[in-house]
Amino acid sequence: MSALDDLAGAAKSGTLYGIGVGPGDVRYLTLRAAALVQTVDLVAYFAKRDLAGNARRIVAPLLSAGRTERRFEYPLTDEVPADCALYRDELGRFYRDAANAIAGELRLGRSVGLLAEGDPFFYGSFMHIWRRLAADFPTEVVPGVTGMSGCWTRANVPITWGDDSLVVLPGTLDEAKLVERLRFADAAVVMKVGRHLAKVRRAVATAGLLARAVYVERGTMEEERIRPLAECGESEGAYFAMVLIPGEGRRV
Amino acid sequence: MSALDDLAGAAKSGTLYGIGVGPGDVRYLTLRAAALVQTVDLVAYFAKRDLAGNARRIVAPLLSAGRTERRFEYPLTDEVPADCALYRDELGRFYRDAANAIAGELRLGRSVGLLAEGDPFFYGSFMHIWRRLAADFPTEVVPGVTGMSGCWTRANVPITWGDDSLVVLPGTLDEAKLVERLRFADAAVVMKVGRHLAKVRRAVATAGLLARAVYVERGTMEEERIRPLAECGESEGAYFAMVLIPGEGRRV
Repeated sequence: MSALDDLAGAAKSGTLYGIGVGPGDVRYLTLRAAALVQTVDLVAYFAKRDLAGNARRIVAPLLSAGRTERRFEYPLTDEVPADCALYRDELGRFYRDAANAIAGELRLGRSVGLLAEGDPFFYGSFMHIWRRLAADFPTEVVPGVTGMSGCWTRANVPITWGDDSLVVLPGTLDEAKLVERLRFADAAVVMKVGRHLAKVRRAVATAGLLARAVYVERGTMEEERIRPLAECGESEGAYFAMVLIPGEGRRV
Repeated sequence: MSALDDLAGAAKSGTLYGIGVGPGDVRYLTLRAAALVQTVDLVAYFAKRDLAGNARRIVAPLLSAGRTERRFEYPLTDEVPADCALYRDELGRFYRDAANAIAGELRLGRSVGLLAEGDPFFYGSFMHIWRRLAADFPTEVVPGVTGMSGCWTRANVPITWGDDSLVVLPGTLDEAKLVERLRFADAAVVMKVGRHLAKVRRAVATAGLLARAVYVERGTMEEERIRPLAECGESEGAYFAMVLIPGEGRRV
């Protein structure tokens, strides 16, 4: 292929959109995200095996019948620890295959909107596709309302005041690290609490923050549950669970 | 007034909406925010003296002629240090007066949409009104895309990968504290950089993070500027400036 053919080919490529679909309520999509969901040639999304896919569920009210969709099913999610070679191998192959499939569509001149829960560049699976394709195809990322914003809104907990600092921690960190980092925080969010609930509660208590901590499960979604963390006696939480510790900074 | 009158009065109160208007581009308002901006009885917003008001500017394309608006002008913003008694007194009086004015509208049965840049519960001025009124009036907070999401999207910098932790720091912190907290971060955002740019750059360098740091000014807005922090030689940045330090967590 000559350089000229190459250029002509590139000019006809479809655009890859990373579409942040927000925390769960379809009304929290941005205008840009909603417009793209309704107009891209192909709506693509990731889903756990046997489940509808949370991002797909969020945008369902915006998808008219007959839209072209592509579902990519994770070979695994949290069944295997992320520091395992098996996890890296399986997920690596999965994202590579998905990126290849999407690249095939883009080369045919079709636009692809890959849905991302929350914000695409904040712990988003989209990033694993983006790093494989963004250099080669026109790409637009549409920021979204994060899951944590949805949770603190629904919990009625302003998270940072005045000069508060905020720390966002994955619940997968070991207990000593959680404690150490929580001690440096004015306000904190612990994500991915799920099966780490008992450990997270101990770490929050050790850091002296239990009295202010709020547990939020499936924030902005139908099965939302919000409680003081101190009242969560169970050892495991839901997959979409986080713990919020609001700051106590300057009130004027 | 009897308890019954009181109840009847309460039932007719207008609703207070805290409307997150996102980072700057009107397309990044949520569907819920855009609908409210177009339908509330009164659109209220804060603005710096002599300026149009950034939140007002963001939603301008959605405001048809003849909408009822109420502008609240800050008596001061960053001319006086926030730990000064003068700052607290002046701002305290300002928010109290604004809350009273809004309460007056709500009591007349009018809905009030108070615009908040980014997300209302993330460093939002709205919170100072919310804490004065939310117990007494029906209130709905609409989460928004944060300024930092807008900035890392435009800078093309995925911020957190895998099990990265994220630290959000105000640039107002003193240099030693900035360094100490940056050292505990996998990824970091320094907000409110403005006049603190030289200090923030020194702190980022001391923490060994200068090579990855990106400076973003007015992200998603018209006068947006994005550069490596290492290339920002000037001592002061714009008011809407932040520094992003992306995480280096798990790529699969």
